[in-house]
This record gives sequence, C-alpha cells and structure tokens, in this order.
Amino acid sequence: MKLTVVGGGSTYTPELVDGFARLRDTLPLEELVLVDPAADRLELVGGLARRIFAKQGHPGRVVTTSDLDAGIDGADAVLLQLRVGGQAARQQDETWPLECGCVGQETTGAGGLAKALRTVPVVLDIAERVRRANPRAWIVDFTNPVGIVTRALLREGHRAVGLCNVAIGLQRKFAGLLGTAPTDLHLGHVGLNHLTWETGVRLGGPDGDDVLPGLLAEHGEAIAADLRLPHALLDRLGVVPSYYLRYYYAHDEVVRELATKPSRAAEVASMEAELLTMYADPALDEKPALLARRGGAYYSEAAVDLAAALLGGGGSPYQVVNTLNRGTLPFLPDDAVIEVQAAVGPAGPVPLPVPALDPLFSGLVANVTAYEELALDAALRGGRDRVFRALLAHPLIAQYAYAETLTDRLIAHNREHLAWA
Amino acid sequence: MKLTVVGGGSTYTPELVDGFARLRDTLPLEELVLVDPAADRLELVGGLARRIFAKQGHPGRVVTTSDLDAGIDGADAVLLQLRVGGQAARQQDETWPLECGCVGQETTGAGGLAKALRTVPVVLDIAERVRRANPRAWIVDFTNPVGIVTRALLREGHRAVGLCNVAIGLQRKFAGLLGTAPTDLHLGHVGLNHLTWETGVRLGGPDGDDVLPGLLAEHGEAIAADLRLPHALLDRLGVVPSYYLRYYYAHDEVVRELATKPSRAAEVASMEAELLTMYADPALDEKPALLARRGGAYYSEAAVDLAAALLGGGGSPYQVVNTLNRGTLPFLPDDAVIEVQAAVGPAGPVPLPVPALDPLFSGLVANVTAYEELALDAALRGGRDRVFRALLAHPLIAQYAYAETLTDRLIAHNREHLAWA
Amino acid sequence: MKLTVVGGGSTYTPELVDGFARLRDTLPLEELVLVDPAADRLELVGGLARRIFAKQGHPGRVVTTSDLDAGIDGADAVLLQLRVGGQAARQQDETWPLECGCVGQETTGAGGLAKALRTVPVVLDIAERVRRANPRAWIVDFTNPVGIVTRALLREGHRAVGLCNVAIGLQRKFAGLLGTAPTDLHLGHVGLNHLTWETGVRLGGPDGDDVLPGLLAEHGEAIAADLRLPHALLDRLGVVPSYYLRYYYAHDEVVRELATKPSRAAEVASMEAELLTMYADPALDEKPALLARRGGAYYSEAAVDLAAALLGGGGSPYQVVNTLNRGTLPFLPDDAVIEVQAAVGPAGPVPLPVPALDPLFSGLVANVTAYEELALDAALRGGRDRVFRALLAHPLIAQYAYAETLTDRLIAHNREHLAWA
Amino acid sequence: MKLTVVGGGSTYTPELVDGFARLRDTLPLEELVLVDPAADRLELVGGLARRIFAKQGHPGRVVTTSDLDAGIDGADAVLLQLRVGGQAARQQDETWPLECGCVGQETTGAGGLAKALRTVPVVLDIAERVRRANPRAWIVDFTNPVGIVTRALLREGHRAVGLCNVAIGLQRKFAGLLGTAPTDLHLGHVGLNHLTWETGVRLGGPDGDDVLPGLLAEHGEAIAADLRLPHALLDRLGVVPSYYLRYYYAHDEVVRELATKPSRAAEVASMEAELLTMYADPALDEKPALLARRGGAYYSEAAVDLAAALLGGGGSPYQVVNTLNRGTLPFLPDDAVIEVQAAVGPAGPVPLPVPALDPLFSGLVANVTAYEELALDAALRGGRDRVFRALLAHPLIAQYAYAETLTDRLIAHNREHLAWA
Repeated sequence: MKLTVVGGGSTYTPELVDGFARLRDTLPLEELVLVDPAADRLELVGGLARRIFAKQGHPGRVVTTSDLDAGIDGADAVLLQLRVGGQAARQQDETWPLECGCVGQETTGAGGLAKALRTVPVVLDIAERVRRANPRAWIVDFTNPVGIVTRALLREGHRAVGLCNVAIGLQRKFAGLLGTAPTDLHLGHVGLNHLTWETGVRLGGPDGDDVLPGLLAEHGEAIAADLRLPHALLDRLGVVPSYYLRYYYAHDEVVRELATKPSRAAEVASMEAELLTMYADPALDEKPALLARRGGAYYSEAAVDLAAALLGGGGSPYQVVNTLNRGTLPFLPDDAVIEVQAAVGPAGPVPLPVPALDPLFSGLVANVTAYEELALDAALRGGRDRVFRALLAHPLIAQYAYAETLTDRLIAHNREHLAWA
Repeated sequence: MKLTVVGGGSTYTPELVDGFARLRDTLPLEELVLVDPAADRLELVGGLARRIFAKQGHPGRVVTTSDLDAGIDGADAVLLQLRVGGQAARQQDETWPLECGCVGQETTGAGGLAKALRTVPVVLDIAERVRRANPRAWIVDFTNPVGIVTRALLREGHRAVGLCNVAIGLQRKFAGLLGTAPTDLHLGHVGLNHLTWETGVRLGGPDGDDVLPGLLAEHGEAIAADLRLPHALLDRLGVVPSYYLRYYYAHDEVVRELATKPSRAAEVASMEAELLTMYADPALDEKPALLARRGGAYYSEAAVDLAAALLGGGGSPYQVVNTLNRGTLPFLPDDAVIEVQAAVGPAGPVPLPVPALDPLFSGLVANVTAYEELALDAALRGGRDRVFRALLAHPLIAQYAYAETLTDRLIAHNREHLAWA
Repeated sequence: MKLTVVGGGSTYTPELVDGFARLRDTLPLEELVLVDPAADRLELVGGLARRIFAKQGHPGRVVTTSDLDAGIDGADAVLLQLRVGGQAARQQDETWPLECGCVGQETTGAGGLAKALRTVPVVLDIAERVRRANPRAWIVDFTNPVGIVTRALLREGHRAVGLCNVAIGLQRKFAGLLGTAPTDLHLGHVGLNHLTWETGVRLGGPDGDDVLPGLLAEHGEAIAADLRLPHALLDRLGVVPSYYLRYYYAHDEVVRELATKPSRAAEVASMEAELLTMYADPALDEKPALLARRGGAYYSEAAVDLAAALLGGGGSPYQVVNTLNRGTLPFLPDDAVIEVQAAVGPAGPVPLPVPALDPLFSGLVANVTAYEELALDAALRGGRDRVFRALLAHPLIAQYAYAETLTDRLIAHNREHLAWA
Repeated sequence: MKLTVVGGGSTYTPELVDGFARLRDTLPLEELVLVDPAADRLELVGGLARRIFAKQGHPGRVVTTSDLDAGIDGADAVLLQLRVGGQAARQQDETWPLECGCVGQETTGAGGLAKALRTVPVVLDIAERVRRANPRAWIVDFTNPVGIVTRALLREGHRAVGLCNVAIGLQRKFAGLLGTAPTDLHLGHVGLNHLTWETGVRLGGPDGDDVLPGLLAEHGEAIAADLRLPHALLDRLGVVPSYYLRYYYAHDEVVRELATKPSRAAEVASMEAELLTMYADPALDEKPALLARRGGAYYSEAAVDLAAALLGGGGSPYQVVNTLNRGTLPFLPDDAVIEVQAAVGPAGPVPLPVPALDPLFSGLVANVTAYEELALDAALRGGRDRVFRALLAHPLIAQYAYAETLTDRLIAHNREHLAWA
C-alpha cells in the first residue's frame, strides 16, 4: 500500500506522519511519499518523518521527491494538502476584504473565493495526472476550500473525497466533556464544509440515544466559549454550529476583531519558521508540542480512518466527509458537495440519510451552495464577470458596491495566480 | 356576481373602483361591497365609489358596511386589502429596524416580519368566516406581506391567490419604452413576492421572442434609474430585478437614506388625509390625480383580470400571481408560495414551467423562503424564540446580536397586536 | 386564421368540417386547407366540405392540395390525422398478433407498435416541414398511437399537442345520463392515451362536487355495458376506465372475440367505400348519419376547442390533452407524455395537479410508459432488437416466446414501411 | 452476542448453524437460540446444532425453546425464517393458481399473495415483542415474500433488513465460471426481491471493471441453462435475470410444466422427513449432503455477513439486502422496499447509487411495486376487495376474470390463517 502526500513539505506533515505511525494496524502503509516543490522544506520534514517512523517501529519507507509524476506513480491514494501562493497569499486573503467591512478569511467570504480561484486549476491538473498514473487511485482533498475543490474534482469524474477536521475535533471535544471514548460518539453532522451544525450527538452509532440536549445543558457554557459564540445563541439554536459559523452569526464583530489583530497568516508563518527549525534537529523524533497550535488537530486520525476505509483495510464504518449530495439534502442539487456522515468503503462514501434540516440552517446552506456553484464556475472559466457574480451571491457580501470593489481587489491581489487575469 | 373588499375604506379603493367601472365587460359585477371597521372613512370612500360607478354608467350596486359577516355573505370573491395597526404601525415598522443598521420597510426585513405577525391571525380569521359563508368563494390577498399571508391561507386550505402590482407595473413600463401594447408583453417573472426578477420579456406570449436583451441595451439607463440601482448592475445581472431587490443589492445605502428621510408611512399618512378631504367633495366623481402617487398603480387592472379569470368570466390566460410552488422551482418545498406566471382559471392558478433559475438568484430565493417558513411559524404560534429564529434566518439580518435586539424591539412595538406577547 | 389538415382526404373529415362550421364563433377560420396525397378522395371530401361551409354560411375558404409544403405554408395550426399504410395496414395490425394469442389492435399491443413504427418517421418529417414554414405554428396530433407520436414530436422540440376523443365522449355520455350540459362536467381524467381512468366527475369545474359515486350507483350498469366490461368491475374499481382498458382487464376474452369476428379494419373499409359514394353526391351538404358509426365522435368539438385555446381565440379553460408529464405524475419521467386535464392557452397545455394515483392504476401506467419509451426508441432508430425489447416490455406480451414471434411477424408485415428493415 | 432464530426448528437450520460455526471469527456468537413451536422438530434440530458446534469447536451455547418471549429476551439480532401453515399451505399456494392458468409459486403471483396474507400479521406480532424486549435488536427477515414482509416491518418502524440468497448464489456461480474468489466479484444487483437482474459483474468492488459482457459471451449458455431460460434471451437482455424472472419471461411454459409435475412443496416435504430422520442420528455432527438440495444455498454465509455488519463486528462492506428505496430507484416511492447493494453497518443498510435502470426492467419493477403496496394493504387490513385489488394489479394476473376467481380460491384455501375471513 502506497500513499502520496502532495504538499508533503507542509509543517502539518509530522502530525500526519505521527498518525500513520500510531495507527499502522488500521492502515498498513508500505510506502509514504512526500511530494513538494520546495526541496529545502521537504528535506527537513522528510527527515523528521523518517525519524518518527523509525522511533515507533513502523516498517514502511518514507520517500521524498519534488517530481509530482514520480511521486504519484503507483500510489493507491493521494492526499492533497497544498497551498497555492503559500502563507503570503493567505495573508492577502485575510486582509483586503476587511477594507470593505467584509470578513477576511482563507475559506469563508471573498478570501475563500480568492483561494478557490488559485487552487482549483492546480488541483485539477494534479488529479488528471493521478488518473493517468492510476485510474483506481483515491484522491483525498484536505486543501481548502474543501467544498469547492471537491466539487471541482467530482465534476471532472475523479475518485475523490473531501476531508476536514472540524467534525473529528468536536467529537473529541464532546467525548472529553462527557468522559466517553470518542469512537462511542456519532455526530449528527450536516451542512457544507465550514458551514455545519451538529444536530445530535448519539451514543454508540447513528441511531443511538441523543445526548446533545444534556451536553448543552451541562457544558453549553464551555462549548460556547470554545466557539467564541454567546452561550445564549447555542441555547436558542439547540445545536452546535461549527466555529466557522461565527463568521456569519457574529460577522461584524469578527471584522472588527480581525481589523485590529495580526493576521492568522502572520501567526502561522512565524510558527512555521519555528517549527522548521525544530524539524532540522536530528535528535527530534516525534511531533513537537508546538504543532498542536498550528491547527489541523486530529487531521491524521481522520486521514488514516478515511484512507483505510477507501482502500478496504478497515476504518470506522461511518465518517464525516465531503461528497456528492445525490438527494441527501433534497433542497440542494444532486451534484452539490455536502459534508455529512457517510458509510465509507472501497466504492467511496455513501451518505447516511439526514433528517429534514431546520429552515434556520437550510436557507443558509442553500444560499452558500449557490455561491459555491458560481465560485466553481469562476474558478474553471475565469473572467471578471464570473468573479463578481460569485461575490454578489455570497450571503456575507450580497451588496452591489462591495461586490464591485472586492472583485477588483481580488483580481489585483491574485493576478499572478490567475491565468485569465 | 358579488365581490367584497375587506379594508374597503382604504384610500386605495377609488383606484380599484375606477378599474371595476372601466373594465366592466371583463368583470360584470352586480354588487360591490366595501367592508371596513372605520365607518367614517368608509362613508367618504363609499360615496366616491358610487359617484364613479354612476359617472361611468356601471349598473352595479355599491354597498358599504362595517359588519364583516354581512359584507362577505354571498360573495363570489373577497379581496383583502387591510392594514392591521394602520399607518401608525407602518411608521414603526419603518423606523426601529434602522437603529440596528437594518432596513426598515413594511414587507422586507424585520418590519415585514412585524407586519406578518400582526396580519396573519387577522386574515386567517376573516378567511375562516368567508369559508363558512361560501366555501366556493375565492380570496384574493393584496395585503402585505403577500407571500407569507398567502402561504398562511393556502396552508389552511383556503381558496386563495396572492396578488401584487409589481409585475403589471413593469409590464406597463416596458410597453411604454418599447411602444407596444402592454398585453403584447409576457414577462418571465420569477421569485417570491417582493423578491423577483424579470428574466425575459417576450412578445405575444410565453414562448414569443425575448426582447429583454434589446430592451436593456437601449433603455437600461432609464430602467435602472427608475429602480434607483446602478445601470452597471442591470448589465451584469442581465435581468431586471424588482425595486424591492434594492433593499438587498444596496442595503447599507438604503439604510443611510431611510435614516435621514421622513418615513414613507408619514408621507402616505399626509397624502391620505388630503385624499380623504377630496373624497368628501360630492362633486368629485373620478379618482383624483394625487392617488397615482399613493402607490398601487395598475392594481385595479390586475385585480379585475384575476377575479375575472377565477370566476370564469375571462381575463388574461396568463397572470402573475402568488401560489403554491408544487415543483415549479424544484429547489423549494412544494408548499412554498412563489410569484410567477400562471394559467389562471376557475380551478385557480397553475404555474407555467420556469426555466432553471440562475444560482445568483436561486440562493437568495431559497434563503428568503426558509425565512418565510419561520416567519409563518412565528405568526401562527407566537413566542419570542420563534421571532428570534425568523429574524436570524433573514439574510438581511443574519447576525446574532441584531436578531436579539430586533426581537425585543419588534415585540415592544407590537405588543398590542400580538395575542401571545 | 389558417388551419391545415394533413390527411384531409380521410372520410372523417366531414365530421371535422361540420364542427368548424358550427363552432365558427369559437374558431373563426379564414382558410381551411385539406392536404392528402390521394387526390381522388381529396376531391370528394373537399367538395362536401365546401358544401357544408356554404350551407351553414361559413365565410372561410376550403382549399385542397396534394402538395404538403403548399398546404402548410402560412398555417397557424396543423392537424395531423393521417394513416400510413391505410386500412390495409390496419387490417394487418389487427390480425397477426392474434395468432400468438395476443390482442390485435391498432393502438394497443403489438399492432400499436407496428403503427408507431410506420407513423413516427412520417410525422416527424411533416413536423420538420411545418417548423421550417412557420416556427410558431401549433401541431395537433390526432394520429395514433397519439401518446407515442406526441412524445416523438415533443422530444424533437415541436410545438405539439396530442388529442383524443375518449374524454369528450365520456363527458357527453355522462352528461346525458345526468341530464346536465356537458360543459358543466369536469372529468378527473388521468393516465396515458388509451390507458385512462375517470377518477372523478365534478360539477362546474376541477374542484366542484364529485358526482361520480352517485353516477356509478345509478348508471353503473349502463356505463359498464357501454364499455363491455362487467358491472361488478366498475364497482370494485370505483372509477370508469376507458374502453381501451378492456384490452387489459379482459384480454383473453377480447382475443377470442377478435379471432372469430371480421376485423374492425374490414368494417371501416366497407363503411368508407359507402361514405365516399355519398360524398360524391353533389346534393349532399351535411355530414351523413353513417359517419357517426365511423368513430371519432365529438372529435370536431375537441379539435375546435383545442385550436381556439392554442391560437388565443378562447376555448374551454381546461381540456384533456396529451402533453409532457413534467412532474404531474411523479412516478413517471418528466419527458413522458400523459393524458390529463390541462389549462390550455397560447403557451400550450399546463397540466392541472393530479391527486395521488391509486397503485392499482399507477403500476400499469408506469409499465406502459416504459414500453412507450422503448417503442419510440424502436421507431426512431429501428432494428430487430429494439422491436423485440419494446414487445417484451409490453405488459400484454411480456413473455419471451411471444415477443420473438411477434417481432418477426411485425417486421414481415411492415417491411415496406420500415426504412431499416 | 446473542442471536435468536425464530423458526429455528426448520430443516434449514443446520445449514445456518454450520455457517455460524465456520465463520465464528466474523460473528463471535456467545449464544444461539432456536425458537420453534414444534418441540419435536426443535429437539432434533437443536441436538444436531449442538453437535455441529461441538465438532467445530465453537464455544457458544445453543439453546432451544418453544417460548418466543424467552427466546428473544436479550437477543442482539433475531432471524426470522418461519413458515405460517407449513409445507401444507405451500402445497396449496403452488396448486390452486394453476387452475386459472396462472403460475403457482410460494412468492410470485397469487400464491405469493396468499403467503404474504398469512405471514405479515404473524411477523409483525413477533417484531413487536422483539422491540419490547430490546428496542436496539436487529431483525433479519428471511421469511418470504421477503419484499412485502420487510416493507411491513419497516413501515412499522422496526429495525429490520430483508435477506435473500439469490445474489450470493449468483456471485458463487459466476466466481466458479470465472475461476475467481467470490468476494472478488461485486454484482450490480437491482430490483425487488425475486425480481432482480445482475446488470454488471465488477472485479474488486462497485467500480471495478465490468466482466459481465465477457462472462455472457463465454458462459452464457451455461448460465442460461441454469436459469432454464433461452440463451438467446440472455444475449438480448445483456444482463442476467434472477431465475424467478422465468415466471414472467416464460410464464405460460412454466404453468404447463407445473401442471404436470409434483409440486415443490411435496418434494420438500418428503426431503424434510428424510432430513429429520438423519438429524435424529446422534452420530451425525455435520450438515448432511442432502441438505444442499433443500434450497437456501449460501444462506448461512449471507446471514453471518449481514449480522456481523449490523452488530458492528465486521462483515463485507457491501451486501445485497432488502431495504427502503429512499430515492435509489427514483421512479419508486421512497418507502418501497428494494433489493440492491448497500453499505451495511450498525446504522443499517445505506443503498449504493444505482445507474438509471433500463425501461425494459423498470416498467416491470414499478408494476410489481404497485402490486406489493396493494398486497401489503390487503395483509394489514384484510377484506375480499383488497385481495382482489392486489391480484388485479399483479402483472401475471391482470385480468378481471382471473382476479375474481383467484380471490375466491385464495380465501377459501387460507381461511384458517386469515383473521378477517
């Protein structure tokens, strides 16, 4: 079993490698390939990866390469975790939208559209090469915006699944609060990537008892604090929104915060420098504690679980993934990509049935899905008009004057990454 | 043929009566009943109505009464044009939302929700009496918010159709610009009440040639000016939004305007006083010119056309109405109320097929439909929580803090009209 | 207003002409063109047509021609009532299926498939010429099998409606039994052409009171006798099936009858000879009584009503037609052609909503629709395999051995009409 | 883990027990309970079961009881394999329909309806007791007619899955012909229980290469012979029908055969007597070879696989089961029960997406589904009329005269099992 990580030079990678090492019974990798154009970083990350495997006694080989085609050759699964334009582009995404009073964020709003426009063509090119190399290989996309990127991949007929760590993070969080094993909790997770709600927390499986009401009653304060949303809101909603919903429910407050704080990109960039210095230390043979603050918690658990299920080697029977809607949320097109619990196996994910969604959530989901359709159209076909249409359709922008201004800024800031601009 | 107007004491009524007089061949009324609790106004309006009928040689009787049950007895059709709380309540609806930076308007946003909460119970009570008096009578609702009120009526199984004059107004406008007869133009009108777009303007009928592109090319400037939207926006959309879309596409600009201008309610109130003085003049036997500025242009044409079709006496084969979705817009629930072209006959409206709606519009339509469902729930069942949910679901509010504040204000300003508050 | 009848030399035509004359206020024809390749018959029929117009004082011109393109030039509506292969082919359709113990009939079963295969290519060629001559002209198809032929026309994007006289015949029949005017009765007519049931008989319109239970209680015996079905069956079904359902509900009995009686084709052929002799008499200036036995009763009423509604000149608001399903019967594909009540106007038919269909009927409707899809495929693309598939799919054939034998016979008997055979 | 078999005294049971013993790693049973009212048989079967477990070293207990409530108490899964009325009733089902020229069979046609009417109330009563004893227990129904019985269970909200061995039998058959392991073959199995087609045979999983065309080309003759259908038919269909389709595709031939052969019930009854004699031999400690001829081949493999997946202990990721349609076959109601591949896990089966079904099959599937709805209605609510309606709706009966006669005979032969008769 061979697995390739595109963007393997990311400082995230040791988290992933640690998971592969710990969970080698679930996913018995023979070869792990890290692909990255940045040879220097790759060297540092690859070295640490080998030391982690060695320390934990994992028998698999770790290979590093800057040659994409060589890296994907013969791979059974390819994990995408790249970042077109790097933290510099992210820094932009987080900044210019604020000038219009709109949230600046790498996946939500105008910044997210910029990232989609930069990313989709690159990912489709990689996917095409993967298909040529091995039409049976699975592509797991962890690259944001996961919803739009996965929709692009599936529209082109790729064997692809989108993955995010929001659900697994909440599962662990809730398990901690309840004092149970995480695998005992089944989340009623529903929506779009970064636009989800936990509508239930069930013990033992999808039709176990729902302990969410009790969880909210007892630990609502703590959960709300973690999401930085008012406790009263959680009570009113009766469900737990993802923390990305804060960009909606508290939009103006977030904009004010962002406008006065250093950007997350800047934070991450400084953290990355520090991490790379650590990785360079030949004595380091485990993921450093600092990495936990880098984000992506439990990403490795989720990735191992998903890869194992797709490659037929086990994994949890139900996993939260991004996949085709196909009637699961009946108010969305069949070819929309949703984020829900699915039975995952060698044929890919099959969504579990979802109870009728509260209009309080379904209206927003429908609106953002329409935006995503237009965003994908802009990413695939380019052009100022398509960018404007996507921005006007986004519920956090929605007004003519902002859409016009943001269109111009998006193009100005991303010209080097947009073939058509 | 007997037709009853509930809210017949409105200063609008002479517009309607003038239409009944002019179009008596299409709708041969034998008796027109004006019902209103405000006996004084009713006296003035009823007197002018009789003089208009007399001058134009209409043979029908005009009856006035403050007794609802007497007024609807034996009616074939009942027109609802009431206003719970009068212009005073409207004044409120237009004011308090502005304090949160949200639009204040009698149908859109928080003000529209307030009006829905006041109106739905009253209308359902009237409808129930109509049904008891004559289960075959048609109810035509012109009372705002027409979408929510019509949904309430249809959910309760009433024979009801919602009517608005936006479409007929645009048809007349376009006909003027093109130099054609209005009846030669068929609008591709689609959306929800006060959330519609003209996606085509066809000559001769629903599948005639589409002259909208030419119309926009030649008269886009004038149309945009009329809607007070930028010409460039119309060009980008490629369709003509209703002027209520300005509350969305230029929300913040509108809020600033409204905050610095006298309210529309105040304007209307002063106009009404002037109109009633005129109506009191026994020499007046036609609708005064001032009435045109009161709003509701062509309302009488639309109402006559609709009543004629429903009562089997003719009327245009296709009319823009508010009616059950039933799959017409496949992304909405079957029991949503949409505003589209329909074949209207004695069995009520049957929507014409609608081509796939651009995601640029469908996302917003879905979002507002979800709001309307929650608004109706709040109107029917009451309670602070339901009001909050509806406000949070509205795309022009959407944020927690605003929804909380607006909920409190809505209840404070409307307590006397809300049985549960 | 110009209307062209293709197959105008049919002995049916005087029935149609008589209707045009009587109902000239509804459909003010200026020119009626009869097109037929059989110049002799056309001469006889055309002469009588002119005398009928003259006697009844109809001001329109009657033109005859054997040149199709000349005949359709400038027509607003084109009525198709042709018969490829004439009564001789019908005679075959009614005979060879009996040898396998299957019903022999010109629209139902294997004979109907043969007729479809002969007819569809000819009709599509005519429709293409009509579209070239006048893209706005309406095509009314009365040519059997109306369901399959109309589906072929609509799939190719023609402005077409299928028409049958079964519903209008039952409406007249029921009106006679009830002592009411036919136009007071609205039939709840549902299914596919020649596979329909009257599920209600409503007074005054689509939501009037249903008098079907009383009608069956009082006149069930007479209605059953007319349909040649057991009275007890009508009681059990609780609805009135079309008499074509007898080919299903009493299939084996019908086969035995047909095997021992002269064919309907032979009867009609002899009647036609007699009719043509009558038509040749220059003193004859009205449709002869014998014509009533020829079939097609009330066909002219239905055709005038339909043409008037399509051409914007009036007609009944609701008419039974063959048109696209588009979700009306949710268990059928959107592009299936169904026979139901529709609001008919210049944009064509819009089906009225149909209550959920009893599984006792919906299963058969779904099965025959699947057959029709395969039949159309065979008609459009030819080939022994496609004919076999259609026959195997037909619920009256369904068995391998019969489908094989009937495929061979169908091809052998129709070789001259099948381009691919 | 405790599993209860209701109808555990069946002569089938040793097949099942042998499977539990062989596959104990997949399904680690601690207790196997055999429940049967027939204490004598149960004694014989239970004895052999214990000897099989002992010989194969299975550590689990085998318990026998005639007390249903005791037997299901604490069970994690309950397998239903009962036969109301025994082989004597089956003998009837196979006989009286033949007198009308209709197939006599225990699941298809009038005989199948009789079995449904006898079985549904009994199964629902058992299911209700299971739910009271353990609301989380899974019910696996192997009792025919599996489609209708499973639909009854699911309609009542039971945690139930229907199981049949047709698919696993074909999988083994094809694997033998291709020389591969059965688990390497994924069947594109679609339809209703006993009305299915294999539309593909894929290597390695649901989206592996389809080897069906090659399989048919090379082994079509053998497959056809096995199904007793003409080789040419398989070629024409391009898929492999279940052998129950022979009752449709060769109905009249089958009727002639059945009319002249001893019934299957008689064969089975004699085989059962012989088997019970063998079981009584205390030296016998494995399933006898004769049992293979009893039917139900591979039933134990299928049952173990299914129970393991439902109880979270493993099993194949995809299994052919009877479960709710929920849009999988879009032309059927959501609450129809279909037989397809599903991802099975602790939340029950989630059907894999099914490609659009050929109309050649979908028409028949829709028709039989409509019959099943009426059959279930008759089973639940009783009455001669409902029986008649179900029989008239069945495509193998369909004619009035047969439906009347068969209704009378069904009731006469089953009176003691029908509470309402």
